[in-house]
This record gives sequence, structure tokens and C-alpha cells, in this order.
Amino acid sequence: MEFRDKDYKYMERALELARKGEGFVSPNPLVGAVIVKDDKIIGKGYHSAFGEDHAEVMAIDSADTDVKGSDLYVNLEPCSHYGKTPPCSLKVINSGIKRVFIANGDPNPKVAGGGISQLKEKDIEVYAGLMEEEGRKLNESFFHFMEKKRPFYNLKVAQTIDGYIAAPGGDARWISGEKSREYAHYLRHKLDAVLVGRGTAELDDPQLTVRHLDGKVSQPTRVILDSNLKISLESKLFKEARKGNYLSDILVFTGPDVDAVKKSKFQELPGVKVIELALNEDNQLDLDDLSRELINFDLINILLEGGSRINYSFLKAGLIDKYYIFISPKILGGNDGIPVFAGAAPDKIYKSEKINIDKTERYGEDILITAYPKRGES
Amino acid sequence: MEFRDKDYKYMERALELARKGEGFVSPNPLVGAVIVKDDKIIGKGYHSAFGEDHAEVMAIDSADTDVKGSDLYVNLEPCSHYGKTPPCSLKVINSGIKRVFIANGDPNPKVAGGGISQLKEKDIEVYAGLMEEEGRKLNESFFHFMEKKRPFYNLKVAQTIDGYIAAPGGDARWISGEKSREYAHYLRHKLDAVLVGRGTAELDDPQLTVRHLDGKVSQPTRVILDSNLKISLESKLFKEARKGNYLSDILVFTGPDVDAVKKSKFQELPGVKVIELALNEDNQLDLDDLSRELINFDLINILLEGGSRINYSFLKAGLIDKYYIFISPKILGGNDGIPVFAGAAPDKIYKSEKINIDKTERYGEDILITAYPKRGES
Repeated sequence: MEFRDKDYKYMERALELARKGEGFVSPNPLVGAVIVKDDKIIGKGYHSAFGEDHAEVMAIDSADTDVKGSDLYVNLEPCSHYGKTPPCSLKVINSGIKRVFIANGDPNPKVAGGGISQLKEKDIEVYAGLMEEEGRKLNESFFHFMEKKRPFYNLKVAQTIDGYIAAPGGDARWISGEKSREYAHYLRHKLDAVLVGRGTAELDDPQLTVRHLDGKVSQPTRVILDSNLKISLESKLFKEARKGNYLSDILVFTGPDVDAVKKSKFQELPGVKVIELALNEDNQLDLDDLSRELINFDLINILLEGGSRINYSFLKAGLIDKYYIFISPKILGGNDGIPVFAGAAPDKIYKSEKINIDKTERYGEDILITAYPKRGES
Repeated sequence: MEFRDKDYKYMERALELARKGEGFVSPNPLVGAVIVKDDKIIGKGYHSAFGEDHAEVMAIDSADTDVKGSDLYVNLEPCSHYGKTPPCSLKVINSGIKRVFIANGDPNPKVAGGGISQLKEKDIEVYAGLMEEEGRKLNESFFHFMEKKRPFYNLKVAQTIDGYIAAPGGDARWISGEKSREYAHYLRHKLDAVLVGRGTAELDDPQLTVRHLDGKVSQPTRVILDSNLKISLESKLFKEARKGNYLSDILVFTGPDVDAVKKSKFQELPGVKVIELALNEDNQLDLDDLSRELINFDLINILLEGGSRINYSFLKAGLIDKYYIFISPKILGGNDGIPVFAGAAPDKIYKSEKINIDKTERYGEDILITAYPKRGES
């Protein structure tokens, strides 16, 4: 069917509302809904936090007029199963809504078309596929997780134009400008977890928390990869935990058979967990094993914040799903700075990793390149 | 004075015409002119080649109506001295033109306001400063040369997003896409000379000529820096010269006291010159000396095409006046590729080179960042 201009307008509004849940609803998807009657929005809702009302329910309950005979615009197919909340499909049916416009079907096998079928059985007209692409992008990590059953890994890099994330000694203050750093904090808020290697955890930004943002923020789980549990208990991260300043969980992933005494000292700290992973053939933490563990913790949207060796491991494992590359208008000028990826490069350019640039934006003086891997193409 | 919309329109047209001379007029500036009478363009002209008519003359001669009482729009102050051609100011005065609109005064000390004064003395109304900035940008290398008395050096780089210009072994085919490479050839056409180090001259693109462009092209002078005259006489560059395929001059700059026999073999080739330069304290070719020599050859707009060590030398000498950085959507992924700048980096980010990004454009899948050094700021 051909959608009308106003259909796009209302779905756009639903997507905007959905975004209000950023940082709070994972592992659920972001969902927003508007109810329209006589060309007027009479109800709005969004999924605001994990365990809270779904968007459709909030929209129906918020309506200032009888919703009977109205149109519902919702970016995700209403759920049809009992989870934390009763199925939305029932609520929609009972409300007397006449038509339902949907961006995306729910990939959750517990729903997967069931919501739409239930609506249709009750003679509700259902129009799916309105702004499908925008809806998919809004919930890209959710769809990715449902399809691939592993977390969605976002690499964040702040580099000089010639490709360095720090000067030779490790100094990185400041490669990117204030606006870029603010955006980076927004990413921490939006995503479920921040992941760094031990070196970065000790050197750069020991807190790994969200700062510089207005309003209510969601603190990401902090994930440290440290195969030999070498990180110091005196690192600021753990000092704060010991002081009882709980901000979010800290997960330390190590290899097997690490020092049990040291491990127990970490485990005693509130919010800190040490999890042992298998090692791969290169004697490094097995990233597939890591992915499984992160899913156990409901962490599906991960921000990789370095350093160079972690970046390289994820790149080579084909695990980077999205790139946020801040390019600052600075030239380090030399070849002994800290590179974005530390490891052996391929011997031919055609073997390099191809990416699809999604957007190029200016953040203050910096350029932010957002990109996706070009998979299945050479 | 407040310029009118139509003044901008006519000057824009003059600037467009001026651009037609790109590649052919150096060391003269690009100049375009239109003559307007009763709100109609009745004559157009541009400086098409060094030694040819100036823009104003061509415009007056091309007029299909009597130019008496008309307005002249020309981006540069009409010259007032006898050079390769008689002074344009006289031609303008004799034509009966009533008003003259100018973007920029001529910085050439032989002119410098003289043209404007002569016109005013003859009661011609002169309005200078119309689209001054655009005019200055069009002739940035010319103004730079007039003010600094040295060539304008443009660095051209084609790099992966992580900052490498080639894979570890030197493979660089192809970092950038077809559209970017085409633009790079346009730059060779537009500028006076292409400058590379010996390594690049032997490895990458032995011809250093303009290809892939439609229409009449201007072949740049080819400049090779080779302090010990180690380059092989069998390099394609010289083979072509020996075969008599003259395309443009080849200037080989060496240190003092190179092998006289080898030198004479180069000198025998048509279009090839070997020029000895002083060495600096690091035992490298003195770039100030180089600048003086390039000016002697009327080469004022130079394209630096690598490799890493040449780039580093020019950067550290503070000689890079403009950057053309093609960023390709590829990640080399590793830290042993060929960097943009080879040498020691500063130990702190605040000591890095700051640049002002002028434009960010897409060329096919690539991004072209055009930038200028941020001089005199920290």
C-alpha cells in the first residue's frame, strides 16, 4: 500500500517518542506510539524503562478522548505474549482501535507476527512496513542481537587526522573537542556497556561513566578485559566501588586460572564481578565466549573504547558492527604515536576492511564519521 | 558601499570565467571579466594562457555592442604596467567604460593600486572589494607568493581511515576510488608542479602526468627530491624522456657534489635538469633553497605527492599551505603500514599541528577534506 504523507508524519513522531527510552529499556527495543483520531494526536506513549509499560499501553492510557475508531502508529509490532507486562495486542483490541500502522515486525520468536495476526483476527486493519528502514536503524542493536544472537559492538575512536589516538607516550588530552566528548558521553548513556582493555582502564579515563550530560542518565556497565587479572585494586574504578560509590556494575573478564586470592578481593567489592573466559588459539580471551557472557548479563549494545590492541582483536574477529570515528583537525605528524589498531596489517590494500560511511557530521571542529562494516563484499 | 545582488551575480560570472585559465596562466593570477550594459552581459573574457591577452582586453574586444558607458566586473585590479602585454588600465580608459567593479587589488608591487588610481584619474568610478574573499581564494597561491615570496605547497594524501597511505610492503592500489583519483589528476593539471621523493618517483606512479581528464590539459613540471642522485636512469620517467616523449620538464634536486658523470647523463635528456641544493643541519635538502629555485622556474603552486618522509619534512618545516586529504572507507587495520608522515611525533597532543578544515566533500565513496594550517595559534 502507498502510505500518505501524514502516515510518515505520525510514524516519525512515534520514532521520536521511542528515542526517549534510550539508555533505559535494553535489552528491550525502543518503542514509541501515537494514537490519531480525526487527524489529531490524542494519545502518546513510549517504552520508558525495562519492566515498565509498553508504548501502546501508555499511549492508550494517555488518550484524552475515547480511542475507539482511532489509528495507532507504533514502530514495533505489538507483543502478543505475557512477559513483564500483559500482551499489548489485547490492550489494542480491547481499546477499539481501528487501524494499526507498524514500522517493523517483532523479530522476537515469542512474537514474530503473532501480534499482527491477533489484531487482524479481530478485524483491525494492520499496515506494516511504514518507515521500516528508520525503525530498523533505531533498534539496530536489538535486531542484530535477535538475528545473530550476539552483542552489537560499536567502536568509538577519537583520532588525529593522520590516524593516532595518542602521542607516543600515551598523551591523548585532548584529541577531540568538547562537543565530540559530549557526544561520546551520550553514547555511553545510550549503550549498555563500555568495554576497555586493562591498559586503557588504568591509564585514560578510570571512571568510564557518563558525565557532561543534562537530565537523567543511564550509567553503562563497565567491562574490563584483563586476561591475567593484572589490573590494580587501587585503580580509581575499584577505589570508588570500595568507597561504596556504586554507579554501575564492573565486569572484569579474565582468562582461566587467575590468582584466586586476588580474584576474591575484586569479588568482594560491591558491583564487581570477575568472570573467567576461555582463551583462543592466540592465547587471548575468546571473544565468542565473551559475547555469550555479555548476553547472560543482558548487555547487547557495547561501546568499545580501546585501546589499540582491543580494537585490533575485535576488528580481526569481524565483530565490529558500527564505527564512530571522531577525526580531529590535528595532525600528530610522525609515525610513533598510538595507532587505532595495533597489530600486523595485511600486505595488500584489497585485503583491508571495507566500510560503508553512513554519515559525516561536524561536531564543533571535529568530523564524526559513522560507518558500518561492508560485509560479504570484497 | 553596499553591493547589489546583481553585482555579486556578475562578479561570480567573472570568477567562473577566470577559472578557465586554470593550469595555463601561472605564474600569473587567474582573471576573468564581464562587461555589462543595460543589465546585459555584452562582453566576456579571461586570461587564458601566460603571455596571452588579459581578461579585460578579451572582454572589451569580445563585446558585441559599444562598451561606452558600460560596467566592467573583473576579479583583479587592471594592471597599469607594460609586461608581456600593454597595461589593461589604458585599454579600459580608452574603451569608455564608466564603472569598474573589482574583487581584489593587485598585490604585484608593479601594480598595487596603480591601476585603480589611473582609472579614477580618468573619472571612472571604481568599486573594489566585491567578493574579495572568493577572489582571494581563487588566487590563493598567487597572493601567497606575492606576500611570502615562496611557493604555495599543497599536500595531497590518499589514506585509509586509520591513516595509512600504503600496506606494509608499499602496496597502495587502490586506496582511493576512481573519482578521487580523477580529482588528483585535476590537481596536477591545475597546479604548476608535482613534487615527490625519489622512493615515490621510482615506486608509485613513474609518469606523474595528468591523465583521465577531458579537454586540453596542462602537464605539470615534475620535481624529484633525491639528495644523492640515486634514482635510476632506467626509471620510466627518464626512459620516456630518452625516447623523446616530452611531456613536461623534470627537475631533479640533489645535494651538492653528486656524481658528475651520472649527473651529466641526466642533463643530456631533453627536458631534464639536475639542480644542486644546499643541505640543512640534518643533512637533508634545504627546503628554503628549494623554494628559491622553484621560484626561479616560475613554479609557485606545488603539489606534494609524497612519500612519508617528504611529507614529514615539509610539515616540520612549516611549509604545508594547504591539505587535500582523501579518506577512503577502508581500514588497513594494523600499525605497520606506510604512514602519512614518517618521523618522530611530538610527545603531547597539544604540540600537534592544528588545521582549519575548509570543506568536507564526498568523492564517490571517499571523503575529501580540504584544510589549511592554523598558523599563529596554539
